Formats: sequence, structure tokens, C-alpha cells
Amino acid sequence: MRLSRSFTPTLREDPAEAEIASHRLLLRGAFVRQVAAGIYTFLPMGLRTMRRIEAIIREEMEDSGAIEIRMPIAIPAEPWKATGRWDLYGDQLFRLQDRHGRDMLLGPTQEEVVAPLVAGEVSSYRDLPLNLYQVEWKYRDEFRPRFGLLRGREFLMKDAYSFDRNEPAMAASYEVMKAAYHRIFDRCGLDYAVVEAEAGQIGGGTNHEFMARAEVGEDLFVECEHGDYIADLKAARPMAPDASAAATQELTVIDTPDTPTIETLAALLDIDASKTLKCVLFDVGGRTVAVLVPGDREVNEAKLEQLVFPATVRMFEDEDFARRGFAKGYVGPQGFDEDVTIYADHTVRGGRDWVTGSNQVDRHVTGANAGRDFRVDAYEDLVVLREGDACPVDGGQLHIGRSIVVGHIYQLGKRYSEPLEATFTEEDGSEQVFWMGCYGIGISRILAAAAEQCHDEDGLTLPKVLAPFEVVVILANHDDEQAIAEAERIYGDLTAAGVGVALDDRHERAGVKFADADLIGYPVQVTVGKRGIANGTVDLKLRSTGERSNAPLAEAAQAAVALLATAP
Amino acid sequence: MRLSRSFTPTLREDPAEAEIASHRLLLRGAFVRQVAAGIYTFLPMGLRTMRRIEAIIREEMEDSGAIEIRMPIAIPAEPWKATGRWDLYGDQLFRLQDRHGRDMLLGPTQEEVVAPLVAGEVSSYRDLPLNLYQVEWKYRDEFRPRFGLLRGREFLMKDAYSFDRNEPAMAASYEVMKAAYHRIFDRCGLDYAVVEAEAGQIGGGTNHEFMARAEVGEDLFVECEHGDYIADLKAARPMAPDASAAATQELTVIDTPDTPTIETLAALLDIDASKTLKCVLFDVGGRTVAVLVPGDREVNEAKLEQLVFPATVRMFEDEDFARRGFAKGYVGPQGFDEDVTIYADHTVRGGRDWVTGSNQVDRHVTGANAGRDFRVDAYEDLVVLREGDACPVDGGQLHIGRSIVVGHIYQLGKRYSEPLEATFTEEDGSEQVFWMGCYGIGISRILAAAAEQCHDEDGLTLPKVLAPFEVVVILANHDDEQAIAEAERIYGDLTAAGVGVALDDRHERAGVKFADADLIGYPVQVTVGKRGIANGTVDLKLRSTGERSNAPLAEAAQAAVALLATAP
Repeated sequence: MRLSRSFTPTLREDPAEAEIASHRLLLRGAFVRQVAAGIYTFLPMGLRTMRRIEAIIREEMEDSGAIEIRMPIAIPAEPWKATGRWDLYGDQLFRLQDRHGRDMLLGPTQEEVVAPLVAGEVSSYRDLPLNLYQVEWKYRDEFRPRFGLLRGREFLMKDAYSFDRNEPAMAASYEVMKAAYHRIFDRCGLDYAVVEAEAGQIGGGTNHEFMARAEVGEDLFVECEHGDYIADLKAARPMAPDASAAATQELTVIDTPDTPTIETLAALLDIDASKTLKCVLFDVGGRTVAVLVPGDREVNEAKLEQLVFPATVRMFEDEDFARRGFAKGYVGPQGFDEDVTIYADHTVRGGRDWVTGSNQVDRHVTGANAGRDFRVDAYEDLVVLREGDACPVDGGQLHIGRSIVVGHIYQLGKRYSEPLEATFTEEDGSEQVFWMGCYGIGISRILAAAAEQCHDEDGLTLPKVLAPFEVVVILANHDDEQAIAEAERIYGDLTAAGVGVALDDRHERAGVKFADADLIGYPVQVTVGKRGIANGTVDLKLRSTGERSNAPLAEAAQAAVALLATAP
Repeated sequence: MRLSRSFTPTLREDPAEAEIASHRLLLRGAFVRQVAAGIYTFLPMGLRTMRRIEAIIREEMEDSGAIEIRMPIAIPAEPWKATGRWDLYGDQLFRLQDRHGRDMLLGPTQEEVVAPLVAGEVSSYRDLPLNLYQVEWKYRDEFRPRFGLLRGREFLMKDAYSFDRNEPAMAASYEVMKAAYHRIFDRCGLDYAVVEAEAGQIGGGTNHEFMARAEVGEDLFVECEHGDYIADLKAARPMAPDASAAATQELTVIDTPDTPTIETLAALLDIDASKTLKCVLFDVGGRTVAVLVPGDREVNEAKLEQLVFPATVRMFEDEDFARRGFAKGYVGPQGFDEDVTIYADHTVRGGRDWVTGSNQVDRHVTGANAGRDFRVDAYEDLVVLREGDACPVDGGQLHIGRSIVVGHIYQLGKRYSEPLEATFTEEDGSEQVFWMGCYGIGISRILAAAAEQCHDEDGLTLPKVLAPFEVVVILANHDDEQAIAEAERIYGDLTAAGVGVALDDRHERAGVKFADADLIGYPVQVTVGKRGIANGTVDLKLRSTGERSNAPLAEAAQAAVALLATAP
């Protein structure tokens, strides 16, 4: 590509709206431009990089036996109502109505399209397994889109859906995709971890996230100091303590004026917050659910949502306390009606003689013990994990890291096929629902994650498999006939050799071209200028190290190819 | 591609919902499946064909100097409000609001995105001309989506936008695109015509449509018997008659009970409808507009809309007649207030002594003459053209044909750049608005148009540049070891030769495979079976003619390539 005939309006200054490096550099390098919050136009450099990522993904999908199709973006709401996601997604869903008043949505994921498709076409177990994938734009109406392509409202995804006869077959399909994902992220040159994750709005059982490590990442994960446990923070669980010994105190009501929070309570009594028992109330699809956690810990709402799926979870608001007769700030689990479900986190097992609410304003109780003073319907994993918690595998210290989720794979089981009545006929003649898996990769997000991992003060340093072009030929003197002829020749030689090459033949000063070359991050730069031509040489630069060299004019293309082979 | 590992669920029976051949065959051949009215999933065969069309278009766009970008689908409404299209598009626009209540839409075309983009990045005349294009899904909420991909609500388009310094430069860019469009449709093998068209909701001046001829097409065009005039029916104008000689009759009011229509009036008076003058009333943005046409002709509302653009046009309803004091069925142009604009079609020039309404119920006038008895503010082109009308070029007979519009190009001028304040700095330092052009191709519609033009009773006969695969190797006996080995070898040889080849290795009867091969329309079929192997031969068939031949087993691939060269 000749830059003189491209559309690559690089920026000299850092754009004010960009808080993080990838966003800043993708704007400055003319990869993208914002159209609305979280919605972007891709300029030629961004589009090329995205196409290169797509090509890697398609190769690995095809090699794994997945079959490409293309599903619509604007889809009918009915199947989403059947699976409950029409309500579950809440404000995150872009909803619309057509001129006849029929509900539609912009798909954030396509289980509700692909399952009816397969159910309509595949009637026999003989046609399974089947794995269909597509590369298409997806939509999520984020409350606060930001960080450029990291948290967009319109984003490009590869999404695949597997259909199997039974659970073991589903698990086998899942492993094939997991291996393909490893190859994809390895080929993209990302530093990433694969973690146990939380299924969220997609639902289902076993699932894993592929997390690209990044300081600015909004997705937290925990890792054991010994490397034997790694998980999404939302899914991570600390080691469950042994059950505590028997109670030593009697249940006693005490006056605790003005202590509606754990902090004020612990301060008044001069005890550690971990000695108090927090009783947090939720509305779960109309029912009241209490979650007990030690006072120094937070309830993990995502885990609660997963536990009660598909019911919707809402923390009590003031009017809930008033209407259902609970004393806000002084709630304790003693004497709850049977219609209140009480979950306790596993960490609560390890405590006794709790200080907790008395269910009367300005009073708490001491000496509260599970079983004797209050009921626990089930012990579940319901706390947010903290830095330094004990690893559930070996008790080692857990550390929290930041990352960008670039892939997420799920064993869906019958989560969608059952409500959508997606069935096939088994060998024995019985009608069975499909066992499904789904597998997503954020393509535009990989671009942002790679930019976050690969940059320096001068610009992007994307690996050569992702950079928009592998080599740039910089025509330093755009008005010198001989330099033009040589640059064109080298550009032609590299093109003929199958190298992705850009020719910077713009009517710009050499300094501008050098700065742009570093900014966009072509792995190899070949500079053709008057001075070099006088010496019969071209200048070469490896972007990753900044190392400079030169080569005879006649061998410029070969030298560039050889240097490219050494580039990351 | 091995069909055993593809997803190509062909149908034996004609689907009930398909009224036309392209729709029926694209469903039967497993190219597409419907998700909702006018919204489709593309299966592998459909996706491949669409990708091949895209590749042709991209080549011709790049060769014409157009630069590929990718604009968003979900876009903000503000610029659409600035250009007036938010109102103009009415129910055809898919509208939505984001969670913060901001108006958005699904883009049917992208002038409102690309003009601000270019205005933000291009500041100087030196960076012009510029032509940006993309391939992306577009949306139009059709009242009655039908005919499969012909009138869809979600459809794939290539849209390009040119930016120039002035009108002649815009016209030059337009010609470059027009030539590229000719090459694209020629390469796609379509039988098409280029016609003068009507700008519709896009607006602007000069524009042309590329119309693929098709019996089932909904887009009508007219063509002179001598081939010197061709136009979209909506834009076509008959030859304007000479102005008539002077009036011969006095204006006279006559009783005409129960004659509210031209038919009843002409019958009562026993005259030809062409002797009557029809005065049709419209509300145009709140004002009253009268359009005069001979009684045997219809008003072309699209032309009126174009004439008064951007005001909206609505034909009078009962309550308009009542409120504004017009006698419905008996309206004549005599004595109209100055605030009623009176347009007459050119054909009215040729008439005199008209019979028209008296503006009193059950009465008409005879002997009405323009100038003397009623005012005409302007003569315009406002009738629907009819079969047999006189060609405006040479007076020859015009014939009406049916077609599918597959491309539409426009000289937009300042239609968008002015309201969007999209400007650049001219050589003299002045600030100027861009002169724009826009250029659209319906990619999914080309697929339907090609299917409409290329099929027979057995299935599709798409030209080899569009068919999903150029050659199919049919393994007639899927349980014969030697046949399998030979089919695999030929498949491998053809793949290595760069031929787009499918291997039908499904566990199906040979008859099913033959029927599917004809249905999908691979240009060349190579059948490998036990019988042939015994003779040391393969069977070849050219889909377009049905001609059969055979070739030695060892030369099967070369023979297929040679046969392919003869395929259309």
C-alpha cells in the first residue's frame, strides 16, 4: 500500500479522551476513530490488523473442524424471551421495535439464533458433533464505555457453538476448542493466562477465560504463589476453613447506638471486623435471600447470581427494608422466617461467637452461633476473594492480577437447547436435546490487548503477525528522482516476495515519516534517501530493539526479509 | 471443502414461503435460512458466494483508488437530525435508544458518519480527491420484506463515498466509479442496464442505477425501442408535447351528478379521459400543492417529492379536503388562492379546452384553458410514464421492463457536507464544503439477482466466478475403498491447482449427490464411481449445458480444469 493513497491521519498529540496506552496509540496511529461512546470507525491500519487476527482465528477454527456461517445482527426477541435472557440482560441489551411493533435486539451472543437453526436442520445423532462459527459485530450497551476498544458497545467477535449428543461428547468438543484457543493466542503473541471463570449471563457450567495480562485490565484474576491455582476473581474461592469448634458464649443483646455499619460497630466494641457477621439481604426474583459473610469480607454478587440463575438478583434498597420489616444496619439471621433463604459463605464455617445484628435499631447481639442461634440453608462460595487469601488447592498465598479477557469458552449443557426445544433423534429412537458449548473471542479487543502489551514511548510494537504491515519503505526525499525509483523498486521486490509492505511516499518531511513509522510500529523500517543512495546503501531499523543497520541498495529487499525473520 | 464436514442441509421440496426462483433455490441449495422476515443466516454455500462477490468488488474498488475502512452499524441520531433524514426516512429507519435515552439508528447508508470523519481529518485541498468505501450490513425496515434476499431488512452492501474540491472534480470521481461499477457487474456476469434514476431519500442531483434484468424484479425501467434512452420508471419522462394552440371554447359550468372520478365523468360525457384535466391535491410540509395531469395519467409522487425536497409529501385525505375547503372529486384549478402552488406536468402543455372540476359538488367545467382560466406556477415532469409513451430523445416508443437494482450511484454535491459543515481549506485560503458522491452495491442482492438470471428446473447455474465452488468431485460409492482413494486424489490435485473444489464424500446415495450438485450448481461435476474405475475413467458434466464426457482417471483433474475453462 502506498501511504500517499491511503487514509492514515496520524496524530502528533495525545488525544485528551484517551486514558490508557492502547486507546491513545490506536487513535494516534490512525487505527480507529470514535463515532459515539464505545463505537468506532476502523481506518485502514486498524482494519488490516483486525483482518490479520481474523485470518489466524479462521485457520484455527477450520483446522478444528468448525464451519463458518454468518448470523444476523438484528434478531427477533421471541427466543430470547424463551430462554429468559430478554429480562436477564437488562439495560445491557440494545433493544428496538420494528415498524410493526415487534421486539428485536442487537445480538450480544447468538445461542438463540444458532440453536433453532441446528434444530431445524439436524435431525439425527449421525450428524453430530457439529460446530458452527461466525465472525460478526456484537452489541452490549455498556453503562460507561471506555478505554477505546477495550470496553466498546459495538465489537467484533468470533463466536462458535458446538452441538453434541451427550455430556462427554460436549466436553470433548470443549477441549478441542480450548486447544484451538491456546494456538490462537499463542500465534497472536499475547501474554495470557487461562483461568476458571464465572459463567455470568451466558450461564451453563464449566467455563474458562483467556486473560491477556495488562496493568490497565479491568478483569481481575487470582493466582497462587505456587502456580497451582488460577481463576477469575469473580469465580475464585479461598480455601474453606475447617468447621469451628463449639460455641463458648451465650446469645446476648447489647446496646450499640449509631452503629449501622461494620466499621462503626467494630470501632465501638473495639474488635476486629472479622469477628462480626454481616447479613446482607437480597431480593431474588421476589423472594428474600440473606447472605452471611464475615464482617471484613464482601459478598460476591456475581456468584450469588450464578447460584440462583436464572432468577434476577437485586440488593435490598431502603424501601425493601421498610416494607419487609428488616432493621437496616442491624440485621442478624436469628429468627428469620422459613421463607427467607439463608446462604452462608464457606468462610463463615470457621467462625463462632459472632457479633451480628439484633434486628432492632441501635442494638446488636454477641455470641451468635450457627445451628444454635440461626439457621444456614446452605454453605456456598459467596465472597470476593482478597489479596493474600489461602489457595484452595494448597493453602499458598493468592495474588490478584489485572487482565483483559480476550476469550471465554463455556460448556452450556442444555441451558439453551431445553427452553428452545432444540432436539435430535438418538440411535435408540428417543428425542434428546443437544448438549451445547459456546466459544467467544473478542477480535477488536485482541487488538487493544496487544497494543496494551506491545508499545513503548514512541508508539506501537505489535508482533509481526499482527502489525498492519510487516515492513515500511520510507522514501526520505520525496522529490528526489533516484530515491523515488529505488524506493519503488524495493517496494515492488518486497510485494513480489509476499511481504506485507507499505511505501511511505507522502509529501512529508523525513522526520514526520520516521515518527509515524515508530508510532504505527512496522516491525522493519527500510529508509531510502539521497545520502544513502550516494553510498549505495539503504538504512534498516528493527522497531522492537531500535537497532539500526544498513544494506547495499541492490540487496535491500533481501536484507529487510532477513531482518523481519528476527523480529518478534 | 469436504461436504461431510460442512453444513449444507439442502431441501428436497420447494419451501412454501418462497414465491420466486432465487428465493426458492437459495433456500433449497442451503445458501440461506430465514431468521425473521427479511433477515437471514448465511450458510457456508451462501457465505462463500457472497465472499466471491465481495472479492471482485474490492479488487475494482482498490484499482479505482478507493480506500477501505469500516464504519459502525449502530450510529448516533444527531447527524441524521442535522441532515433532515431522521424525519425523512420515517418508518423505514430502525431506531433505538441507548440506556441513557440517546437516539440511535441502524445505518441504511453512511453519509452522516463519513462526512464528519473526513471533515475531522482532511483539512486541505491537497488531500483531495478522497474515496472511502466499506463492506458492511445495512438496515431498512421494509413494510413487507419478501422475495428472500431481494427485499431484505438486513442486507450486505458495499458503500463508497467520494470527496472533491468542486463540481467538475466530483463529476470526474463519479465517472471513475461508474466505470468500476460496469467492470464489477460485467465480471459478475449479470445482464444489466445502466439507467438515469431518481435520487429518492439519498438526494443530490445526477444519479444512475445499475439494473439487473429480471422478470420478477420490482424495479421498473423504460427503454426506447431505438435504444437511445433508458431510465428508471420513477425518473423517466415522456417527450414533452408542443404547447397547444389557442383556446376555442368558453369556460362553462355543467351539471355532472355523481361523477367524483375521471371514469364516471368521462362515461357521463362520453369523452376520452385524456380530454379531462385531473387536479390532485397534496400537503407539502403544511402547504397545499396542486398537480395537474391529463385525466388518463397518474401523478408520480416520487417526482413530486424530489421536486419539493426536503419537504415531506402527503396526498390529501378526506379531512384535508374538508378543512381546507375543497370539493373532493370536483376540484379544478380555477380561482385558486396564491398560497396554493400549482404544478402542471409537461403533458398538460399539449392540451386545451379541458374538462375539469368546478370546485362544487356534482359540477364540472368545460373549456378550461391554462393562462386564461387558471394559473400554472411551473411545468414540471410529474407523470408516471406508460408503455408506448414517446421517447424524450427521438419520439420512439418506450417499453417498460422489470429489473432488480443492484447498484446506485449519486452525485450528492453539497447535500450532506453543507448541513454537516464538512469543510476543507482551498488553495486561496477560503473554507469550502466538500462536493460528495456516494456509490452503493447490494452484495446480498447481487446473489439473488444472479440466481434469478441463472437457474433452470434442476437448480442454480451461477457463473463460475460466483458459484460457491467451481468444481465438485462426487464420490458415487462412499463405501468403496478405491473410489474413496481416487476421489481424494483428484480433490487434492484440484486444490493444489488453485481450483475452488468441493468433495461430496457424504454417506448419501449417488442420486442424492447428483441432484444436490445440480441444485447448488457447481459449474463442473466430476463423478468417481466403481463402474468408472473399472474402466479407468471418471465422468464429467458441464452444468450449464448438461453435456457429459469422460476422462482417464489419471487425467481427471486436468480434464476438469479444461472443462471449467469452457464454463460460463
